[in-house]
Amino acid sequence: MESGVAHAYCATRQLTEQLAAPLTAEDQTAQSMPDVSPTKWHRAHTTWFFETFVLECFEPGFSPVDPAYRVLFNSYYETVGERYPRPERGVITRPGIDEVATYRSEIDRRVLTLLDADSPPPGLEHLVTVGVHHEQQHQELLLMDIKHVLSRNPLRPAYLSGTSDPGDHPGDPGVTPVRWIDVPGGLIEIGSTGSGFAFDNEHPRHRVHLEPFALADRLVTAGDWLAFIDDGGYRRPELWLSDGWHTVQTEGWTAPLYWQRALDGEQEWLVHTLAGTRPLRAHEPVCHLSYYEADAYARWAGARLPTEFEWEHAARSITTSPGRDFDIGTLHPEPAPGRRSGLSQLTGECWQWTASAYLPYPGFVPAPGAVGEYNGKFMSGQMVLRGGSALTPPDHTRSTYRNFFPPAARWPMTGLRLAATEHTP
Amino acid sequence: MESGVAHAYCATRQLTEQLAAPLTAEDQTAQSMPDVSPTKWHRAHTTWFFETFVLECFEPGFSPVDPAYRVLFNSYYETVGERYPRPERGVITRPGIDEVATYRSEIDRRVLTLLDADSPPPGLEHLVTVGVHHEQQHQELLLMDIKHVLSRNPLRPAYLSGTSDPGDHPGDPGVTPVRWIDVPGGLIEIGSTGSGFAFDNEHPRHRVHLEPFALADRLVTAGDWLAFIDDGGYRRPELWLSDGWHTVQTEGWTAPLYWQRALDGEQEWLVHTLAGTRPLRAHEPVCHLSYYEADAYARWAGARLPTEFEWEHAARSITTSPGRDFDIGTLHPEPAPGRRSGLSQLTGECWQWTASAYLPYPGFVPAPGAVGEYNGKFMSGQMVLRGGSALTPPDHTRSTYRNFFPPAARWPMTGLRLAATEHTP
Amino acid sequence: MESGVAHAYCATRQLTEQLAAPLTAEDQTAQSMPDVSPTKWHRAHTTWFFETFVLECFEPGFSPVDPAYRVLFNSYYETVGERYPRPERGVITRPGIDEVATYRSEIDRRVLTLLDADSPPPGLEHLVTVGVHHEQQHQELLLMDIKHVLSRNPLRPAYLSGTSDPGDHPGDPGVTPVRWIDVPGGLIEIGSTGSGFAFDNEHPRHRVHLEPFALADRLVTAGDWLAFIDDGGYRRPELWLSDGWHTVQTEGWTAPLYWQRALDGEQEWLVHTLAGTRPLRAHEPVCHLSYYEADAYARWAGARLPTEFEWEHAARSITTSPGRDFDIGTLHPEPAPGRRSGLSQLTGECWQWTASAYLPYPGFVPAPGAVGEYNGKFMSGQMVLRGGSALTPPDHTRSTYRNFFPPAARWPMTGLRLAATEHTP
Amino acid sequence: MESGVAHAYCATRQLTEQLAAPLTAEDQTAQSMPDVSPTKWHRAHTTWFFETFVLECFEPGFSPVDPAYRVLFNSYYETVGERYPRPERGVITRPGIDEVATYRSEIDRRVLTLLDADSPPPGLEHLVTVGVHHEQQHQELLLMDIKHVLSRNPLRPAYLSGTSDPGDHPGDPGVTPVRWIDVPGGLIEIGSTGSGFAFDNEHPRHRVHLEPFALADRLVTAGDWLAFIDDGGYRRPELWLSDGWHTVQTEGWTAPLYWQRALDGEQEWLVHTLAGTRPLRAHEPVCHLSYYEADAYARWAGARLPTEFEWEHAARSITTSPGRDFDIGTLHPEPAPGRRSGLSQLTGECWQWTASAYLPYPGFVPAPGAVGEYNGKFMSGQMVLRGGSALTPPDHTRSTYRNFFPPAARWPMTGLRLAATEHTP
Repeated sequence: MESGVAHAYCATRQLTEQLAAPLTAEDQTAQSMPDVSPTKWHRAHTTWFFETFVLECFEPGFSPVDPAYRVLFNSYYETVGERYPRPERGVITRPGIDEVATYRSEIDRRVLTLLDADSPPPGLEHLVTVGVHHEQQHQELLLMDIKHVLSRNPLRPAYLSGTSDPGDHPGDPGVTPVRWIDVPGGLIEIGSTGSGFAFDNEHPRHRVHLEPFALADRLVTAGDWLAFIDDGGYRRPELWLSDGWHTVQTEGWTAPLYWQRALDGEQEWLVHTLAGTRPLRAHEPVCHLSYYEADAYARWAGARLPTEFEWEHAARSITTSPGRDFDIGTLHPEPAPGRRSGLSQLTGECWQWTASAYLPYPGFVPAPGAVGEYNGKFMSGQMVLRGGSALTPPDHTRSTYRNFFPPAARWPMTGLRLAATEHTP
Repeated sequence: MESGVAHAYCATRQLTEQLAAPLTAEDQTAQSMPDVSPTKWHRAHTTWFFETFVLECFEPGFSPVDPAYRVLFNSYYETVGERYPRPERGVITRPGIDEVATYRSEIDRRVLTLLDADSPPPGLEHLVTVGVHHEQQHQELLLMDIKHVLSRNPLRPAYLSGTSDPGDHPGDPGVTPVRWIDVPGGLIEIGSTGSGFAFDNEHPRHRVHLEPFALADRLVTAGDWLAFIDDGGYRRPELWLSDGWHTVQTEGWTAPLYWQRALDGEQEWLVHTLAGTRPLRAHEPVCHLSYYEADAYARWAGARLPTEFEWEHAARSITTSPGRDFDIGTLHPEPAPGRRSGLSQLTGECWQWTASAYLPYPGFVPAPGAVGEYNGKFMSGQMVLRGGSALTPPDHTRSTYRNFFPPAARWPMTGLRLAATEHTP
Repeated sequence: MESGVAHAYCATRQLTEQLAAPLTAEDQTAQSMPDVSPTKWHRAHTTWFFETFVLECFEPGFSPVDPAYRVLFNSYYETVGERYPRPERGVITRPGIDEVATYRSEIDRRVLTLLDADSPPPGLEHLVTVGVHHEQQHQELLLMDIKHVLSRNPLRPAYLSGTSDPGDHPGDPGVTPVRWIDVPGGLIEIGSTGSGFAFDNEHPRHRVHLEPFALADRLVTAGDWLAFIDDGGYRRPELWLSDGWHTVQTEGWTAPLYWQRALDGEQEWLVHTLAGTRPLRAHEPVCHLSYYEADAYARWAGARLPTEFEWEHAARSITTSPGRDFDIGTLHPEPAPGRRSGLSQLTGECWQWTASAYLPYPGFVPAPGAVGEYNGKFMSGQMVLRGGSALTPPDHTRSTYRNFFPPAARWPMTGLRLAATEHTP
Repeated sequence: MESGVAHAYCATRQLTEQLAAPLTAEDQTAQSMPDVSPTKWHRAHTTWFFETFVLECFEPGFSPVDPAYRVLFNSYYETVGERYPRPERGVITRPGIDEVATYRSEIDRRVLTLLDADSPPPGLEHLVTVGVHHEQQHQELLLMDIKHVLSRNPLRPAYLSGTSDPGDHPGDPGVTPVRWIDVPGGLIEIGSTGSGFAFDNEHPRHRVHLEPFALADRLVTAGDWLAFIDDGGYRRPELWLSDGWHTVQTEGWTAPLYWQRALDGEQEWLVHTLAGTRPLRAHEPVCHLSYYEADAYARWAGARLPTEFEWEHAARSITTSPGRDFDIGTLHPEPAPGRRSGLSQLTGECWQWTASAYLPYPGFVPAPGAVGEYNGKFMSGQMVLRGGSALTPPDHTRSTYRNFFPPAARWPMTGLRLAATEHTP
């Protein structure tokens, strides 16, 4: 009988292949910027993760599928050895997509054999679970990366033509003005309770003092953002952090990533999505923003971004419907009817920039071994995002989840929710 | 009778000129990298600050000394208008050092006339005081900048030959192993009480919860650092943050800035100082480190950096001799005899990297007007340093002072003090 | 009945597809540096050339296959309109290789229909011929580009495994010391006579005065080059042009491109070829050199590079076997037996760097219209190469042919032949 | 009695100091871009040249003034040893301007002692003469460099206020349309005859075949250039070489260097000169152009640039007044009255871009020893300019002189004269 871990393993491995299926061999090979990885690299790297951190540790008489893969598909694990340079992943044409499929099958067979043992060795299931969550992260990366690749093509091809964008919700055309939800402060607990999976960076659970604050009940919308643009938001240095203003000028930003003015009229905006280019909808959450833009918008709106602690505390304590408790793990991916009495859009739309730098929690200890490079070594120069996006696998969100990106990153699904200190603005 | 503000004004303005006096016209013109400003630019910019933020507001019939100076000596105040590009300050040969002296005298005369009025307008004294503290900051910048300029010259000239380095203390040759000072946690108050001057970024005072922690009683020394180097510290990626390791490799770092191996023997180290090149002393605090190096050292030592809150709390509560209370404002610049029962070297040696990103305190509001660009807009991409250095003017330190630099900066006087969680390591 | 032009058209178009056939969709998509174009881009661009310069001019009621292709597959013709940026050709995943094949077939059908007309319009056959020669150039580019792409893969895959490298001749293991061929000077004629096809840059034929000179009978070999390396060739600035020495240092060159030391022993050299990695052969012509390296080698050898006029004059006048006359057009692709009485290896091995900058001939007039951008606008910053390589289509060489590349280029098939002034050295 | 060489030495050394005299210590220290050197560096480097190439060879018991100067003031002589990096010359504040004066005096004393000997050693006078001509080159560099430094200052200070620009001639307000001077071709001799000083790159004299051509009797004027601008010259890619068009776009060129539109009206142009900013004069020769601009203008005008051989041949053979023969050495610095019957403005205004790449003459052999690096190693990537400018020392021009700069250089005094093939256009 299949264990829960084996089940999660199979489901996750299968989903990755389903996500890649609409993409041609050409699509799966291209890299549009150093931050982006080719689809077939994602498929191979997640496989390499199981080969390196599971099979190599637990499989008797382990022998690699191809010693060169150890270098080619190592992302950033210095302890594992040499790595192929990240900005040149798009040059690697072989193994091709079929060989990657073979690589995946071979590793799957061997991992499942291990899991199928009568008494799996201690630690095996934990590392497979880490690998499953790792692959879930790459499922979102795969989609946001291919979105970027396709956006650079003047033909503006769609990932899935004729079907709806997986990163696109119909949204609520009847969007109402922001309602401020007051949240009491106090000495609260932050981080994973230890029940359910969490990455090492969500540990240890610890106490933080918060003053009372207010949180917007919904995300900032594209319509809100148009008002910011129309008010000269991208031309007024007093609204921006110094680094942000510098970036606006050197990059020539005048709107979120993937927005473009319609050629005729210049009044209308189009937006590039996984389903191709379509008109912008005023009621959809604004997406593909840098931290700098989120911060400038909040300043312009007379508000601020929440800290990651405020976000987590509110997400857990402001129940949106009877019986939901975010503390137990999963954020609700779909806006529930009537949720507007609480916080809506906690996940399922965009990751939400917080005002918190990505730093270790007090007492943080990275996981032992090479897998300890997973999170800890990135704890400088990045900001925390909370929630989850329309591209996040549904069971890959939780109230303690800490996503992070550099402040200038715009190709992830990033948006914002406003916060305010003490008094509702 | 001269007011306290006028007295501080005169003393500070005079000290700047004294610091510049040993430097030739050539010395005062050069810029060795974008972060460094020429000496005569510091002298002119601090004057521009008074002209722009004091005279222009308060002087009846104000007329600028030279309208071009408004652009030339504006550092980064977008609201004031156009600025001459920072990386090209070294190209500005005129006004020369004598013309800058004339500019300074003219502004001094006019500021003192204002201060001398029977009833100075409200706000005048505050803005002059801000300008005095601003100029004190630039006194330290002037010295650390010229240190960098002179270090690039193969002749290795001294700022002051034949005299001792102002940034160099005899130190305590009998340095002892680190002693750990246990500090209790709790809900503590952080930030300025409002008595005495403080920059806007030290406000508002607010509560932070701290768990108990321990702090090293002294700074890490050059001798300690040699052990890190000898143990392969600069060659072991597992000790470094990802950004840090990248910087080590691209910059080719193998030691702190200004260290160089003696040509003969390769066993001994020399160090460039304001008094020229001299042998490194094992007992002196290690200085001119990036945040990345400080962080890697702490990891290597099995410890960590303190947060800025831990540092402030300890500096205030761990009295080092009867009757000293850091809360009232000033840190002790000279190591007191017998101080080792508490925390020594809180200031007077090196600024101390903390584990805290430079972010606004909850409820932070920048000062109104253009002077509000002073601090707030730099609140991304930088880390907080606490304490004060041998180059910091003695009355320019306090327990709530927040210095900040990007994590790769090494040309300031930067060192570190270790911290540990809960148990003394 | 098929005209000569139609025949050449079909043969050339077919050869391109044959050259691409061994490459997967992934291979055909990658771009390893800005100078390199993806295989499928070459296939599409050569087609675009016929669509733009032939069909658009001559086809009644012309309508483009896809208006976006006009931008995507325009290489550098400013007059034709907007162009997709060259360094990002590897991001264009669609059209894929099959769609490109369809595009090619469609254009072929329409071009052949035009050519098949009873009375083809004046100028049609000429432009088709230009397009055929253009596509022949791209056949060589296609191969040298994919060689570069595959070389960046640590797996070192082969373009054609199990078969011989198309760019690789068995060579003559019995290579003998260089023999110097004396060539008389005088007032000679340079450039195309107008009989047979020539690019505009080979016109007009004009007179040049040459002093007597001597030319080496064969190319410099890999064995010769090893002596240069062993004598410190890459470490002695006095041998190099200033730009060349700078490039050696910034690029870290220590050998020709695609040479690598065998891991075991460090005594032996391997070389990357289209058939994979194999041991270097001392008797093969050294290939993949920059102009700087060729120039430094010549200086080291006490000789010099020939000018392009010396090369053309000698190639035409030094008959290597009775009855051959290079003036009529084609260089001999295969080393003839007994050729060593004259100049061997004029083509069929490597393009040969000359000492001539690529400049217009006196009275040069570019071809009219957009196709005039073909050659003329590149007449700065490049050096002329003469001859032809093992990858050059056999009927694409002639004694007046002017190839050109920037002096630092190493990914083409570039080698050298020595020259000497007046006296045989 | 003072020899001719000693006399030239003293006069040249003195002139350098006179040229530097109007500049402050600050002015003499700054470096505005890597191509520009500080004034005091020019003063020291020309002295280093005599110390290294004269004293070190000929002075018994030679001892350097300061061993560090050997590195600091070596420009590019690899054979002499280590060099301080060129882009950082502006960081060297010491030795200051007075110490440089002392250095100059000390070397002058020692060189003159050597020259004063009863029987100077063979080779001494030749190397001193090379050094004198080297210093004359730097006199022009010194002026064009400081012009660039001062141009970057928004105050737009003058090198010499209240006096006329040394690089500025009153010009001829009655400028007439270009007259074309027909020059017969033939097999002509190019290069130095050996009578009088010449640099190694002017040797050996050799024969070149020229077809008949025509040369404009005067330089292109600022007024001519305005017509080019008004006709969209900087916006039409078809007029430009590919590299040139790329540079126009990346640098944002819309006019020659130092031209700026007057703020009021936008109709008028101002120009930065050594005497400060003044209105542009339509009749003055256009100056501070890149090769790319000169080439584009010629194409726009339906003409071309002359080759360096055409220029030299015409300068020598088209006598402008009875009795002048350029072949004997010196070009006429001042436009003679009535010169318009021949070629005017051969020197004294701007260096004139030619269509010739800077390459060695057939049989070129660099001077022996380190001084052989003077010219030969720069023979790639540069274009030849002929004539002389208003900043060129009067006795530093001759009909065989080959100046050279990279095609994008605009800070030298560079202009153009048109040429035409065969028929007068």
